[in-house]
Amino acid sequence: MNLPDKASISAAHDRIKSYIHHTPVMTSASIDDMVGGSILFKCENFQKVGAFKSRGAMNAILKLTPEQRSQGVATHSSGNHAQALARAAKILGVASYIVMPRTAPEIKKRGVRAYGGQIFECEPTLEARESTLADVIKKTGAVEIHPFNNYDVMEGQATCAKELFEETAPLDFILAPVGGGGLLSGTALATKYFSPRTVVIAGEPAGSDDTYRSLKSGKIEPAQSNTIADGLLTTLGTKTFPVIHDLVKEVIVVSDEEIVSAMRIIWERMKIIVEPSCAVPFAAVLKEKSRFAGKRTGIILSGGNVDLERAAKLFTGS
Amino acid sequence: MNLPDKASISAAHDRIKSYIHHTPVMTSASIDDMVGGSILFKCENFQKVGAFKSRGAMNAILKLTPEQRSQGVATHSSGNHAQALARAAKILGVASYIVMPRTAPEIKKRGVRAYGGQIFECEPTLEARESTLADVIKKTGAVEIHPFNNYDVMEGQATCAKELFEETAPLDFILAPVGGGGLLSGTALATKYFSPRTVVIAGEPAGSDDTYRSLKSGKIEPAQSNTIADGLLTTLGTKTFPVIHDLVKEVIVVSDEEIVSAMRIIWERMKIIVEPSCAVPFAAVLKEKSRFAGKRTGIILSGGNVDLERAAKLFTGS
Repeated sequence: MNLPDKASISAAHDRIKSYIHHTPVMTSASIDDMVGGSILFKCENFQKVGAFKSRGAMNAILKLTPEQRSQGVATHSSGNHAQALARAAKILGVASYIVMPRTAPEIKKRGVRAYGGQIFECEPTLEARESTLADVIKKTGAVEIHPFNNYDVMEGQATCAKELFEETAPLDFILAPVGGGGLLSGTALATKYFSPRTVVIAGEPAGSDDTYRSLKSGKIEPAQSNTIADGLLTTLGTKTFPVIHDLVKEVIVVSDEEIVSAMRIIWERMKIIVEPSCAVPFAAVLKEKSRFAGKRTGIILSGGNVDLERAAKLFTGS
Repeated sequence: MNLPDKASISAAHDRIKSYIHHTPVMTSASIDDMVGGSILFKCENFQKVGAFKSRGAMNAILKLTPEQRSQGVATHSSGNHAQALARAAKILGVASYIVMPRTAPEIKKRGVRAYGGQIFECEPTLEARESTLADVIKKTGAVEIHPFNNYDVMEGQATCAKELFEETAPLDFILAPVGGGGLLSGTALATKYFSPRTVVIAGEPAGSDDTYRSLKSGKIEPAQSNTIADGLLTTLGTKTFPVIHDLVKEVIVVSDEEIVSAMRIIWERMKIIVEPSCAVPFAAVLKEKSRFAGKRTGIILSGGNVDLERAAKLFTGS
């Protein structure tokens, strides 16, 4: 596995194309009015399993050798990567072993099982997840597919921005949310190779602003987990940090209130469902509107997997 | 104004094209699995003002003479037609006078005002609406654009099914919800002219099943208003009933529980927001699944204007 380059991202796109959705790019006149500029939303909330994670997981499994595939794949994840990996594995007839904290929502466990994934429950700590995953790999011989600290996963995520660049006129900015950095590093690489004049900006929740701090300090800083954007609680990886450090010049940090407000605007004006983590880059644009006025800005809407009862509580503040 | 025919529907489509969205057709593998057939959703929830009503209102105003336009347009509506008419009028620099019950939600009044519509409030009865509208027309000389009992409006609504037929392989069924019958009659006429082998079925809430009863009795039966599908409380009109009587062979009636359940599936699986009235035809398909298994079925998703707090209450049953 090597750092993705122009040719390898294009090859990844060809490789995964028939297994994923080519998601639509949506716009809203009322949101454009609000910002005073043109906002193009790349709707990965409509992607398979409801999130961009399908791209990276699919690419990573397709790149395994037949021998590796016969051993199965494994990961620890409580979120969208778990379902994406189980789905990709099922399509190719590969076994998948997913380590999940026992506290993960039942709906996510059901999603993994529906794709034939075998779940191993553990205590909800990073230590327990890692040791359980190590045990599973030892027992099964499965190949680990890390949710983000994996170049093949990064390469798959890069295809999302590539698609956006291919179907729009040149963009001044592109924004993605950042958690572990798989989507952001992939987006930054795709921008470098397919739209080099576009400026990449990350949106990050204030309650887990480790990327903001890491870019300042020049080393990986640990994430906190004090935000409703539950897909963005992870710390950058050793493979994602250097790419982000080189190619992403700025992180705009937003509060939970700003995230809920942005999420609500997307639901109400665009009539689409996005999860809190997904609303973070748009919250960043709204926070610093004047910079995006008169510009063309692409925003990757990362996913739409949110429990409706939970969303209702966020909107009503209860 | 005449009953729309093939040429007039095509002309209407050309007339309104640049003022409306060509809305996407969406599919969902998990919904197809659920039904055992292919379901194609025509997403008018993404239409201008969030509903198909933009088509009919735009067509009706565009067909007015310069003299008529100079008098302004008027209607009574508490719903999507009010905003659609105000928007269409604003685009063409025409005055719009909208009679609304004083109990209409503030958000809908704001929507009308944002498009420059002048609101006349009245008591929330049909009688008060009609007499207030008559007064307004007497005073202003405005042309009435009825929400559905108007051939130009019907012709505009017909363009929605026309678009769907144009971009999909032949459909076995097409379903639309029915309130006053503007969308359903337009859909039935478009089907007759552009896809005559497709069977048109209406979805209707049990708490306002006047179309079901009207087709049985052969005359217009009054609507009740005992359903959450608040866009479908109106009685058929003298222009819509004959078309529906001739061309729509069946109405599938669904309960409010079935509507909420269908609405929830659309939100969760498709990640799009639809209002209760809009979920009615899909509820009808789910209710009689076996008939749609192995078939290709188009469903017109009529609109996405739902208050998020209200939706939350529907989903949580509170």
